[in-house]
Amino acid sequence: MRIDIISAVPDLITSTFGHSILKRAIQNNLAEVNLINLRDYSTSKQKQIDDYAFGGGAGMVLMIEPIAACINQLKSERHYDEIIYMSPDGELLNQKLCNQFSLLKNIIILAGHYKGVDERVRQHFITREISVGDYVLSGGEIPAALLSDAIIRLIPGVLNDETSALSDSFQDNLLAPPVYTRPADYNGWEVPPILLSGHGANIDKWRHEQSLERTKQRRPDLLK
Amino acid sequence: MRIDIISAVPDLITSTFGHSILKRAIQNNLAEVNLINLRDYSTSKQKQIDDYAFGGGAGMVLMIEPIAACINQLKSERHYDEIIYMSPDGELLNQKLCNQFSLLKNIIILAGHYKGVDERVRQHFITREISVGDYVLSGGEIPAALLSDAIIRLIPGVLNDETSALSDSFQDNLLAPPVYTRPADYNGWEVPPILLSGHGANIDKWRHEQSLERTKQRRPDLLK
Repeated sequence: MRIDIISAVPDLITSTFGHSILKRAIQNNLAEVNLINLRDYSTSKQKQIDDYAFGGGAGMVLMIEPIAACINQLKSERHYDEIIYMSPDGELLNQKLCNQFSLLKNIIILAGHYKGVDERVRQHFITREISVGDYVLSGGEIPAALLSDAIIRLIPGVLNDETSALSDSFQDNLLAPPVYTRPADYNGWEVPPILLSGHGANIDKWRHEQSLERTKQRRPDLLK
Repeated sequence: MRIDIISAVPDLITSTFGHSILKRAIQNNLAEVNLINLRDYSTSKQKQIDDYAFGGGAGMVLMIEPIAACINQLKSERHYDEIIYMSPDGELLNQKLCNQFSLLKNIIILAGHYKGVDERVRQHFITREISVGDYVLSGGEIPAALLSDAIIRLIPGVLNDETSALSDSFQDNLLAPPVYTRPADYNGWEVPPILLSGHGANIDKWRHEQSLERTKQRRPDLLK
């Protein structure tokens, strides 16, 4: 899978792709991530990429010209399954969408910055608008890194143990059960005895009950 | 405001604090962010911080001992308003919560990694569990950076123009209106004429109508 991230400040998220699971996925050629600097596609001598909003008001707006030049260039090189714009007014990301995205071959993620992008970009170039949640951030860079992480870890072979992702929260509409590790007694706080019993079937049953109980308490909406 | 982020892989998010608005906020002493490596608090010679889950199953679990040592050390140095654990089964983050968090003085954010942290950490040290959305990530690092960004930008003085944050999505339960910038005509795609009229009151009215319309279409739940 290839992910091209277009941003006015791509350096903001370089470190997120250089460690742990994402680093390994990229090194193993299971995913390719390109951070593209919008400024490289500016058509002006001053490398301008933003300007004041028409009609006045605070905050700069990313101009359509550099974004159009960048996306058109990328599209001339290969077919893209989706051109995604990260925006708090987009479709709310969830695990089901992540599963779907993980099956795609090439995607572009456009990260807004400042006050956002010129609306005509969204009307004419973007195929999907995705929000990571109901809150506002400095830009779409962290959401772009977040979306990449959520997708890439689902690509077969990325996680060491395939069953690890399947037992995560949301894959079956249940929150994950509590986990414990050594020591069995810390400060008098003990691990539930069943986990030390060695009885696999009972442990599975206990975990499922804990998942169900936790989901009922914290997120009854997921059970509907 | 001081934010201490505890992680098994803190280098994952160094770049997110070195650019743009967050960098400026930190340089101007409006916010202090410390990335703390959990491994520095390991009590074993091998610098171990994770182990297999009791009861079996895929994925490693972060041990209680290094986390307890780290949090106890920090708490001995100052008072913390909240000790937050980033987890997909936590309380869903929204703009109202971000506004509240932005008023705090000192917070710890614990980022899980692998399969999560030993449940006893959550029971005995964590005061708040926060989820950035209904999806699973490789770790809590990107969510910790995201939460920091959402909070820090709300601290007075961080954004150049105070009104910029107030006109963002969610601050008034409405999505933001579309924005446009130069050129007024690109490829035959024109900016709505009202934005070029110079009539401030009409522009404000148009923007409010657009906000309302967009919220009705995309997120009617916000209007309830």
